[in-house]
Amino acid sequence: MSEQTMTEAQKARLAMREGRWTGPTVHKIKGFVQSNLVVLPHADAYDFLVYCQRNAKACPVIEVTDPGDPEPRVSAPGADLRTDLPRYAVYRNGVREQDVEEITDLWNPDSVAFLLGSSLSFDEALVRAGVEAGETVWALNTSVPTVPAGKFHGNLVVTMRLMRPEQVVTATQLTTRYVYTHGSPVHVGDPEVIGADLEHPIYGPPLTAIPRDKSAVFWACGVTPQQAAIESKQELMIAHAPAHGFVTDLRSDRFCIP
Amino acid sequence: MSEQTMTEAQKARLAMREGRWTGPTVHKIKGFVQSNLVVLPHADAYDFLVYCQRNAKACPVIEVTDPGDPEPRVSAPGADLRTDLPRYAVYRNGVREQDVEEITDLWNPDSVAFLLGSSLSFDEALVRAGVEAGETVWALNTSVPTVPAGKFHGNLVVTMRLMRPEQVVTATQLTTRYVYTHGSPVHVGDPEVIGADLEHPIYGPPLTAIPRDKSAVFWACGVTPQQAAIESKQELMIAHAPAHGFVTDLRSDRFCIP
Repeated sequence: MSEQTMTEAQKARLAMREGRWTGPTVHKIKGFVQSNLVVLPHADAYDFLVYCQRNAKACPVIEVTDPGDPEPRVSAPGADLRTDLPRYAVYRNGVREQDVEEITDLWNPDSVAFLLGSSLSFDEALVRAGVEAGETVWALNTSVPTVPAGKFHGNLVVTMRLMRPEQVVTATQLTTRYVYTHGSPVHVGDPEVIGADLEHPIYGPPLTAIPRDKSAVFWACGVTPQQAAIESKQELMIAHAPAHGFVTDLRSDRFCIP
Repeated sequence: MSEQTMTEAQKARLAMREGRWTGPTVHKIKGFVQSNLVVLPHADAYDFLVYCQRNAKACPVIEVTDPGDPEPRVSAPGADLRTDLPRYAVYRNGVREQDVEEITDLWNPDSVAFLLGSSLSFDEALVRAGVEAGETVWALNTSVPTVPAGKFHGNLVVTMRLMRPEQVVTATQLTTRYVYTHGSPVHVGDPEVIGADLEHPIYGPPLTAIPRDKSAVFWACGVTPQQAAIESKQELMIAHAPAHGFVTDLRSDRFCIP
């Protein structure tokens, strides 16, 4: 395929595969569904899938690959999940190691990949609807517990976007439709209600308070499984580095309420 | 708990447990979510959960029990899935055996139960909205293939309701909201488009054609896994008998788009 006939999603993945794109995907890809990645040994896959079912708002599963198969055949045929993300986070025994730019050496015949819809998929729709949330999306830890399943447990991670107060209803209405990429917000307003840790963000600049002219809106985040890897001391989990999503071929505006 | 303080859902389950209710649940319980039941050995549970993910419209998972635990702790605390359904279908090596009224003898320490939302949950909402679909709900085989996962494969099963043509839009709008109980229709109109087998219904009276003054509306159905058990020659699957659902404590109108 020549670059001329490739979609923006395919071009992005090629650049990531070739090591030319190692930075965040936030606001970088218009109209394509971005996803979170979780790779686990097959032996842990059932417990994790039940964890996703029990925490569906944080973990909306858009694809599960067959063991050993690194190609997401439904959401991005021809892609390779071992190389086609800009940056990966690797957790061993619950500790995040140095990020890597590909995971070919870590991939095993029993590796299973889960793609979970990312709220980065609807940022362009917010822009189109006139919601001025700016370029910054935060990923924050909270004090809200998730529902455990097998070995997996931990607190909810959220994304936060700041907007003018009169835009909150539009943002809620709009994102309600995008059920596979976290859907409606989990909280609007005071970060303390959900124990959102503004001072130590997983991604984004630290804040001491929400600016007085803005409202904070929080969506469940697909980085939640990485927090579960930490709290559950998971032996091995490979994930996307937060804010460095996998770009699928699915169109955000067509992958909505079924 | 005395009968006076029990909800209609709790009373129904008690009657089923005591063998006083062995008939269908269609249109019998107002406002409570009804669910389909699938019980499998733990060894088959992962493949089945992936099958549900790949066929989410037919198999919206509302709860997965821990192995050996017959209590649906989220959707009906205190209930017992071995006794609290009116009638069970038992599939061995892909063949449906004689239905039974309880499955205590068939339940094992490694049994896992899946509750899948049922469209019987929104019939009362259709009535409230003035959609006159009558008392009859059909369950029909189709020629539409589902997406396989592991050993599980087969064609989609649908429910069919007949209504006046001018009620189709209302029925579509209304059920779109009920994403955990199959959501919007999968088809409206000519049954042949989806190969719906009117002459040999899984449930409901046989038909040779749709009455000329009615429109047929089809929703994905949680009996689909039973067809997969047949086509996959599954060694053992216990399920609800079609149209004989499990009544949860969840309120239909609150268990909607998340």
